[in-house]
Amino acid sequence: MNFLEERIVKDGIVKEGNILKVDSFLNHQLDVELFDQMGKEWARRFKDVEINKILTIEASGIGIACVAARHFNVPVVFAKKSQSVNLDGEMYTAEVESFTHKNKNQVIVSRKFLNEGDKILIIDDFLANGCALQGLISIINQAGASVSGIGIAVEKGFQTGGQIIRNMGYKLESLAIVDAMDASTGNITFRS
Amino acid sequence: MNFLEERIVKDGIVKEGNILKVDSFLNHQLDVELFDQMGKEWARRFKDVEINKILTIEASGIGIACVAARHFNVPVVFAKKSQSVNLDGEMYTAEVESFTHKNKNQVIVSRKFLNEGDKILIIDDFLANGCALQGLISIINQAGASVSGIGIAVEKGFQTGGQIIRNMGYKLESLAIVDAMDASTGNITFRS
Repeated sequence: MNFLEERIVKDGIVKEGNILKVDSFLNHQLDVELFDQMGKEWARRFKDVEINKILTIEASGIGIACVAARHFNVPVVFAKKSQSVNLDGEMYTAEVESFTHKNKNQVIVSRKFLNEGDKILIIDDFLANGCALQGLISIINQAGASVSGIGIAVEKGFQTGGQIIRNMGYKLESLAIVDAMDASTGNITFRS
Repeated sequence: MNFLEERIVKDGIVKEGNILKVDSFLNHQLDVELFDQMGKEWARRFKDVEINKILTIEASGIGIACVAARHFNVPVVFAKKSQSVNLDGEMYTAEVESFTHKNKNQVIVSRKFLNEGDKILIIDDFLANGCALQGLISIINQAGASVSGIGIAVEKGFQTGGQIIRNMGYKLESLAIVDAMDASTGNITFRS
Protein backbone atom coordinates (compact mmCIF):
# COMPACT_ATOMS: atom_id res chain seq x y z
CA MET A 1 0.00 0.00 0.00
CA ASN A 2 1.15 3.54 -0.74
CA PHE A 3 0.85 6.48 1.67
CA LEU A 4 -2.66 7.45 0.53
CA GLU A 5 -4.01 3.89 0.63
CA GLU A 6 -2.59 3.53 4.14
CA ARG A 7 -4.31 6.74 5.20
CA ILE A 8 -7.63 5.60 3.70
CA VAL A 9 -7.40 2.32 5.63
CA LYS A 10 -6.56 4.23 8.82
CA ASP A 11 -9.08 7.08 8.64
CA GLY A 12 -11.56 6.30 5.85
CA ILE A 13 -15.03 4.99 6.75
CA VAL A 14 -17.02 2.66 4.50
CA LYS A 15 -20.78 3.28 4.50
CA GLU A 16 -23.67 1.38 2.92
CA GLY A 17 -24.26 2.32 -0.72
CA ASN A 18 -20.58 2.23 -1.71
CA ILE A 19 -19.86 5.47 0.09
CA LEU A 20 -16.28 6.04 1.24
CA LYS A 21 -16.01 8.87 3.74
CA VAL A 22 -12.60 10.53 3.77
CA ASP A 23 -13.81 13.81 5.23
CA SER A 24 -11.35 13.79 8.12
CA PHE A 25 -8.35 14.36 5.82
CA LEU A 26 -9.38 14.86 2.17
CA ASN A 27 -12.59 16.83 1.59
CA HIS A 28 -13.87 18.60 4.72
CA GLN A 29 -10.96 18.66 7.17
CA LEU A 30 -7.85 18.88 4.97
CA ASP A 31 -4.44 17.42 5.77
CA VAL A 32 -2.20 19.76 3.80
CA GLU A 33 0.94 17.71 4.56
CA LEU A 34 -0.77 14.76 2.87
CA PHE A 35 -1.71 17.01 -0.06
CA ASP A 36 1.96 17.95 -0.37
CA GLN A 37 2.92 14.26 -0.56
CA MET A 38 0.26 13.77 -3.23
CA GLY A 39 1.61 16.72 -5.21
CA LYS A 40 5.13 15.33 -5.01
CA GLU A 41 3.92 11.93 -6.26
CA TRP A 42 1.98 13.44 -9.18
CA ALA A 43 5.04 15.53 -10.09
CA ARG A 44 7.01 12.25 -10.29
CA ARG A 45 4.36 10.50 -12.39
CA PHE A 46 3.87 13.44 -14.77
CA LYS A 47 7.54 14.47 -15.02
CA ASP A 48 7.70 13.64 -18.74
CA VAL A 49 4.68 15.66 -19.85
CA GLU A 50 4.45 19.40 -20.43
CA ILE A 51 2.11 21.23 -18.02
CA ASN A 52 1.57 24.98 -17.80
CA LYS A 53 -1.66 25.09 -15.80
CA ILE A 54 -3.67 22.98 -13.35
CA LEU A 55 -7.45 22.84 -13.71
CA THR A 56 -9.72 21.64 -10.89
CA ILE A 57 -13.34 22.07 -9.83
CA GLU A 58 -14.87 23.57 -6.73
CA ALA A 59 -14.94 22.86 -3.89
CA SER A 60 -12.91 19.91 -2.65
CA GLY A 61 -10.48 19.84 -5.57
CA ILE A 62 -9.16 23.33 -4.87
CA GLY A 63 -7.03 22.68 -1.79
CA ILE A 64 -5.40 19.60 -3.28
CA ALA A 65 -4.72 21.40 -6.57
CA CYS A 66 -3.22 24.47 -4.87
CA VAL A 67 -0.85 22.52 -2.64
CA ALA A 68 0.09 20.18 -5.51
CA ALA A 69 0.73 23.16 -7.80
CA ARG A 70 3.76 24.13 -5.73
CA HIS A 71 5.46 21.02 -7.21
CA PHE A 72 4.71 22.14 -10.78
CA ASN A 73 5.26 25.91 -10.49
CA VAL A 74 2.09 26.64 -12.43
CA PRO A 75 -1.11 28.54 -11.62
CA VAL A 76 -4.38 26.80 -10.73
CA VAL A 77 -7.74 27.55 -12.31
CA PHE A 78 -10.85 26.21 -10.67
CA ALA A 79 -14.09 25.60 -12.53
CA LYS A 80 -17.18 26.99 -10.83
CA LYS A 81 -20.36 25.00 -10.51
CA SER A 82 -22.93 27.76 -10.89
CA GLN A 83 -23.21 31.15 -12.50
CA SER A 84 -21.83 33.91 -10.24
CA VAL A 85 -22.65 37.59 -10.63
CA ASN A 86 -18.92 38.33 -10.35
CA LEU A 87 -18.13 36.18 -13.38
CA ASP A 88 -18.66 38.43 -16.36
CA GLY A 89 -17.32 38.20 -19.88
CA GLU A 90 -17.34 35.08 -21.94
CA MET A 91 -17.21 31.68 -20.35
CA TYR A 92 -16.71 28.09 -21.35
CA THR A 93 -19.54 25.96 -19.95
CA ALA A 94 -20.38 22.27 -19.77
CA GLU A 95 -23.25 20.50 -18.05
CA VAL A 96 -22.32 17.77 -15.56
CA GLU A 97 -24.33 15.56 -13.24
CA SER A 98 -22.99 15.05 -9.71
CA PHE A 99 -22.84 11.48 -8.41
CA THR A 100 -22.93 12.77 -4.85
CA HIS A 101 -25.63 15.38 -5.10
CA LYS A 102 -27.78 13.80 -7.84
CA ASN A 103 -28.20 17.13 -9.55
CA LYS A 104 -26.97 18.84 -12.69
CA ASN A 105 -24.56 21.75 -12.60
CA GLN A 106 -23.12 24.05 -15.17
CA VAL A 107 -19.34 23.86 -14.95
CA ILE A 108 -17.94 27.27 -15.85
CA VAL A 109 -14.48 28.63 -16.60
CA SER A 110 -13.77 32.14 -17.81
CA ARG A 111 -12.33 32.24 -21.33
CA LYS A 112 -9.59 34.52 -20.00
CA PHE A 113 -7.96 31.68 -18.07
CA LEU A 114 -7.89 28.82 -20.60
CA ASN A 115 -6.11 29.50 -23.85
CA GLU A 116 -5.33 27.75 -27.09
CA GLY A 117 -2.18 25.71 -26.65
CA ASP A 118 -2.43 25.43 -22.85
CA LYS A 119 -1.13 22.10 -21.52
CA ILE A 120 -3.48 21.23 -18.69
CA LEU A 121 -3.15 18.88 -15.73
CA ILE A 122 -6.57 18.16 -14.25
CA ILE A 123 -6.58 17.50 -10.48
CA ASP A 124 -9.56 16.32 -8.43
CA ASP A 125 -10.25 14.48 -5.20
CA PHE A 126 -12.62 11.76 -6.44
CA LEU A 127 -13.38 9.90 -9.66
CA ALA A 128 -16.51 7.75 -9.73
CA ASN A 129 -18.70 7.92 -12.83
CA GLY A 130 -16.50 10.70 -14.19
CA CYS A 131 -19.13 13.27 -15.13
CA ALA A 132 -17.27 16.18 -13.55
CA LEU A 133 -14.10 15.10 -15.33
CA GLN A 134 -15.93 14.85 -18.66
CA GLY A 135 -17.16 18.42 -18.14
CA LEU A 136 -13.61 19.65 -17.50
CA ILE A 137 -12.32 17.85 -20.61
CA SER A 138 -15.13 19.40 -22.64
CA ILE A 139 -14.09 22.87 -21.47
CA ILE A 140 -10.41 22.23 -22.25
CA ASN A 141 -11.38 21.10 -25.76
CA GLN A 142 -13.58 24.17 -26.25
CA ALA A 143 -10.56 26.33 -25.41
CA GLY A 144 -8.30 24.59 -27.94
CA ALA A 145 -6.09 23.55 -25.04
CA SER A 146 -4.97 19.97 -24.40
CA VAL A 147 -5.09 17.55 -21.48
CA SER A 148 -1.53 16.63 -20.46
CA GLY A 149 -2.76 14.38 -17.68
CA ILE A 150 -5.30 13.75 -14.97
CA GLY A 151 -4.36 13.32 -11.30
CA ILE A 152 -7.04 11.88 -9.01
CA ALA A 153 -6.71 11.16 -5.30
CA VAL A 154 -9.30 8.39 -4.92
CA GLU A 155 -10.81 6.48 -7.85
CA LYS A 156 -13.77 4.17 -7.33
CA GLY A 157 -12.56 1.40 -9.62
CA PHE A 158 -15.88 -0.42 -9.52
CA GLN A 159 -17.55 2.50 -11.31
CA THR A 160 -17.01 3.25 -14.97
CA GLY A 161 -15.42 6.72 -14.91
CA GLY A 162 -11.77 5.68 -14.83
CA GLN A 163 -12.09 3.01 -17.49
CA ILE A 164 -13.85 5.36 -19.90
CA ILE A 165 -11.12 7.97 -19.45
CA ARG A 166 -8.32 5.39 -19.94
CA ASN A 167 -10.12 3.95 -22.99
CA MET A 168 -10.01 7.44 -24.49
CA GLY A 169 -6.22 7.44 -24.10
CA TYR A 170 -5.82 10.00 -21.35
CA LYS A 171 -2.92 9.61 -18.90
CA LEU A 172 -4.88 9.11 -15.68
CA GLU A 173 -2.97 8.70 -12.42
CA SER A 174 -5.19 7.85 -9.46
CA LEU A 175 -3.19 7.59 -6.24
CA ALA A 176 -5.65 5.07 -4.75
CA ILE A 177 -8.02 2.88 -6.77
CA VAL A 178 -10.71 1.24 -4.64
CA ASP A 179 -11.91 -1.96 -6.34
CA ALA A 180 -14.26 -3.09 -3.58
CA MET A 181 -15.60 -1.96 -0.21
CA ASP A 182 -17.55 -3.87 2.44
CA ALA A 183 -19.61 -1.70 4.78
CA SER A 184 -20.25 -4.63 7.16
CA THR A 185 -16.55 -5.30 7.82
CA GLY A 186 -15.08 -1.92 6.79
CA ASN A 187 -12.70 -3.75 4.44
CA ILE A 188 -11.34 -1.87 1.43
CA THR A 189 -9.71 -3.64 -1.52
CA PHE A 190 -7.26 -1.56 -3.56
CA ARG A 191 -6.15 -2.28 -7.11
CA SER A 192 -2.51 -3.36 -7.05
CA MET B 1 2.37 49.39 -0.86
CA ASN B 2 2.90 45.79 0.15
CA PHE B 3 3.15 42.85 -2.28
CA LEU B 4 -0.62 42.21 -2.38
CA GLU B 5 -1.54 45.88 -2.87
CA GLU B 6 1.00 46.05 -5.71
CA ARG B 7 -0.56 43.00 -7.33
CA ILE B 8 -4.07 44.44 -6.99
CA VAL B 9 -2.94 47.66 -8.69
CA LYS B 10 -1.25 45.63 -11.45
CA ASP B 11 -3.95 43.01 -12.15
CA GLY B 12 -7.14 44.04 -10.33
CA ILE B 13 -9.97 45.61 -12.30
CA VAL B 14 -12.40 48.14 -10.81
CA LYS B 15 -15.98 47.87 -12.07
CA GLU B 16 -19.06 50.00 -11.52
CA GLY B 17 -20.90 49.17 -8.29
CA ASN B 18 -17.75 48.96 -6.13
CA ILE B 19 -16.77 45.63 -7.63
CA LEU B 20 -13.07 44.76 -7.55
CA LYS B 21 -12.23 41.89 -9.86
CA VAL B 22 -9.16 39.94 -8.77
CA ASP B 23 -10.09 36.75 -10.59
CA SER B 24 -6.82 36.52 -12.51
CA PHE B 25 -4.82 35.73 -9.36
CA LEU B 26 -7.04 35.37 -6.26
CA ASN B 27 -10.40 33.68 -6.82
CA HIS B 28 -10.72 31.99 -10.21
CA GLN B 29 -7.19 31.65 -11.54
CA LEU B 30 -5.03 31.19 -8.45
CA ASP B 31 -1.42 32.36 -8.06
CA VAL B 32 -0.18 29.85 -5.48
CA GLU B 33 3.19 31.61 -5.13
CA LEU B 34 1.29 34.73 -4.07
CA PHE B 35 -0.76 32.61 -1.64
CA ASP B 36 2.50 31.35 -0.16
CA GLN B 37 3.67 34.94 0.39
CA MET B 38 0.34 35.72 2.04
CA GLY B 39 0.70 32.68 4.33
CA LYS B 40 4.18 33.77 5.31
CA GLU B 41 2.93 37.27 6.12
CA TRP B 42 0.02 35.99 8.24
CA ALA B 43 2.41 33.65 10.08
CA ARG B 44 4.48 36.74 10.96
CA ARG B 45 1.46 38.76 12.09
CA PHE B 46 -0.04 35.90 14.13
CA LYS B 47 3.24 34.57 15.55
CA ASP B 48 2.23 35.43 19.14
CA VAL B 49 -1.15 33.68 19.17
CA GLU B 50 -1.87 29.98 19.59
CA ILE B 51 -3.43 28.34 16.51
CA ASN B 52 -4.20 24.63 16.06
CA LYS B 53 -6.59 24.78 13.10
CA ILE B 54 -7.49 27.02 10.17
CA LEU B 55 -11.15 27.49 9.24
CA THR B 56 -12.24 28.83 5.85
CA ILE B 57 -15.33 28.70 3.64
CA GLU B 58 -15.86 27.28 0.18
CA ALA B 59 -14.94 27.95 -2.49
CA SER B 60 -12.40 30.71 -2.94
CA GLY B 61 -11.05 30.60 0.62
CA ILE B 62 -9.89 27.01 0.34
CA GLY B 63 -6.82 27.42 -1.86
CA ILE B 64 -5.51 30.39 0.13
CA ALA B 65 -6.10 28.58 3.44
CA CYS B 66 -4.38 25.37 2.29
CA VAL B 67 -1.26 27.09 1.00
CA ALA B 68 -1.12 29.37 4.06
CA ALA B 69 -1.53 26.37 6.38
CA ARG B 70 1.93 25.13 5.41
CA HIS B 71 3.29 28.09 7.40
CA PHE B 72 1.31 27.11 10.51
CA ASN B 73 1.61 23.29 10.38
CA VAL B 74 -2.08 22.87 11.14
CA PRO B 75 -4.99 21.23 9.29
CA VAL B 76 -7.61 23.23 7.40
CA VAL B 77 -11.37 22.79 7.77
CA PHE B 78 -13.63 24.38 5.20
CA ALA B 79 -17.24 25.27 5.90
CA LYS B 80 -19.70 24.13 3.25
CA LYS B 81 -22.40 26.37 1.90
CA SER B 82 -25.16 23.85 1.32
CA GLN B 83 -26.26 20.52 2.71
CA SER B 84 -24.50 17.59 1.02
CA VAL B 85 -25.73 14.00 1.13
CA ASN B 86 -22.19 12.96 2.04
CA LEU B 87 -22.27 15.08 5.20
CA ASP B 88 -23.90 12.90 7.81
CA GLY B 89 -23.76 13.10 11.60
CA GLU B 90 -24.24 16.26 13.53
CA MET B 91 -23.28 19.62 12.14
CA TYR B 92 -22.84 23.16 13.29
CA THR B 93 -24.84 25.49 11.08
CA ALA B 94 -25.25 29.25 10.68
CA GLU B 95 -27.22 31.23 8.14
CA VAL B 96 -25.31 33.82 6.12
CA GLU B 97 -26.22 36.15 3.30
CA SER B 98 -23.77 36.49 0.42
CA PHE B 99 -22.86 40.00 -0.72
CA THR B 100 -21.89 38.67 -4.14
CA HIS B 101 -24.74 36.30 -4.82
CA LYS B 102 -27.52 38.13 -2.94
CA ASN B 103 -28.79 34.86 -1.49
CA LYS B 104 -28.82 33.11 1.87
CA ASN B 105 -26.79 30.00 2.54
CA GLN B 106 -26.47 27.62 5.40
CA VAL B 107 -22.83 27.49 6.46
CA ILE B 108 -22.10 23.99 7.72
CA VAL B 109 -19.21 22.35 9.56
CA SER B 110 -19.24 18.80 10.89
CA ARG B 111 -19.07 18.64 14.69
CA LYS B 112 -16.23 16.13 14.30
CA PHE B 113 -13.83 18.78 13.07
CA LEU B 114 -14.36 21.66 15.51
CA ASN B 115 -13.81 20.87 19.17
CA GLU B 116 -13.99 22.62 22.51
CA GLY B 117 -10.71 24.39 23.16
CA ASP B 118 -9.67 24.62 19.50
CA LYS B 119 -7.73 27.80 18.73
CA ILE B 120 -8.92 28.83 15.29
CA LEU B 121 -7.43 31.09 12.64
CA ILE B 122 -10.10 32.10 10.11
CA ILE B 123 -8.79 32.69 6.57
CA ASP B 124 -10.83 34.08 3.67
CA ASP B 125 -10.25 35.92 0.41
CA PHE B 126 -12.66 38.86 0.84
CA LEU B 127 -14.26 40.82 3.65
CA ALA B 128 -17.06 43.23 2.71
CA ASN B 129 -20.16 43.29 4.90
CA GLY B 130 -18.77 40.36 6.87
CA CYS B 131 -21.77 38.04 6.85
CA ALA B 132 -19.75 34.95 5.93
CA LEU B 133 -17.27 35.79 8.68
CA GLN B 134 -20.07 36.25 11.21
CA GLY B 135 -21.37 32.78 10.30
CA LEU B 136 -17.92 31.24 10.84
CA ILE B 137 -17.57 32.98 14.22
CA SER B 138 -21.02 31.69 15.18
CA ILE B 139 -19.96 28.13 14.37
CA ILE B 140 -16.70 28.47 16.33
CA ASN B 141 -18.66 29.74 19.34
CA GLN B 142 -21.16 26.88 19.03
CA ALA B 143 -18.23 24.45 19.22
CA GLY B 144 -16.79 26.02 22.37
CA ALA B 145 -13.67 26.83 20.37
CA SER B 146 -12.10 30.30 20.18
CA VAL B 147 -11.04 32.69 17.44
CA SER B 148 -7.28 33.27 17.66
CA GLY B 149 -7.32 35.57 14.68
CA ILE B 150 -8.76 36.39 11.28
CA GLY B 151 -6.63 36.67 8.13
CA ILE B 152 -8.26 38.31 5.12
CA ALA B 153 -6.67 38.93 1.74
CA VAL B 154 -8.73 41.93 0.55
CA GLU B 155 -10.96 43.99 2.84
CA LYS B 156 -13.38 46.52 1.41
CA GLY B 157 -12.75 49.22 4.00
CA PHE B 158 -15.71 51.31 2.84
CA GLN B 159 -18.11 48.58 3.93
CA THR B 160 -18.87 47.83 7.55
CA GLY B 161 -17.64 44.25 7.97
CA GLY B 162 -14.11 44.96 9.12
CA GLN B 163 -15.05 47.71 11.55
CA ILE B 164 -17.71 45.53 13.23
CA ILE B 165 -15.21 42.70 13.67
CA ARG B 166 -12.52 45.05 15.08
CA ASN B 167 -15.09 46.69 17.38
CA MET B 168 -15.78 43.23 18.80
CA GLY B 169 -12.10 42.88 19.69
CA TYR B 170 -11.02 40.25 17.19
CA LYS B 171 -7.46 40.36 15.84
CA LEU B 172 -8.21 40.98 12.16
CA GLU B 173 -5.30 41.17 9.73
CA SER B 174 -6.32 42.18 6.21
CA LEU B 175 -3.37 42.22 3.83
CA ALA B 176 -4.96 44.90 1.64
CA ILE B 177 -7.69 47.32 2.78
CA VAL B 178 -9.36 49.16 -0.08
CA ASP B 179 -10.78 52.46 1.16
CA ALA B 180 -11.99 53.75 -2.20
CA MET B 181 -12.23 52.70 -5.83
CA ASP B 182 -13.02 54.71 -8.92
CA ALA B 183 -14.37 52.71 -11.86
CA SER B 184 -13.95 55.64 -14.28
CA THR B 185 -10.20 55.98 -13.67
CA GLY B 186 -9.43 52.51 -12.27
CA ASN B 187 -7.81 54.16 -9.23
CA ILE B 188 -7.69 52.22 -5.98
CA THR B 189 -6.97 53.89 -2.63
CA PHE B 190 -5.51 51.63 0.07
CA ARG B 191 -5.59 52.31 3.79
CA SER B 192 -2.06 53.06 4.99
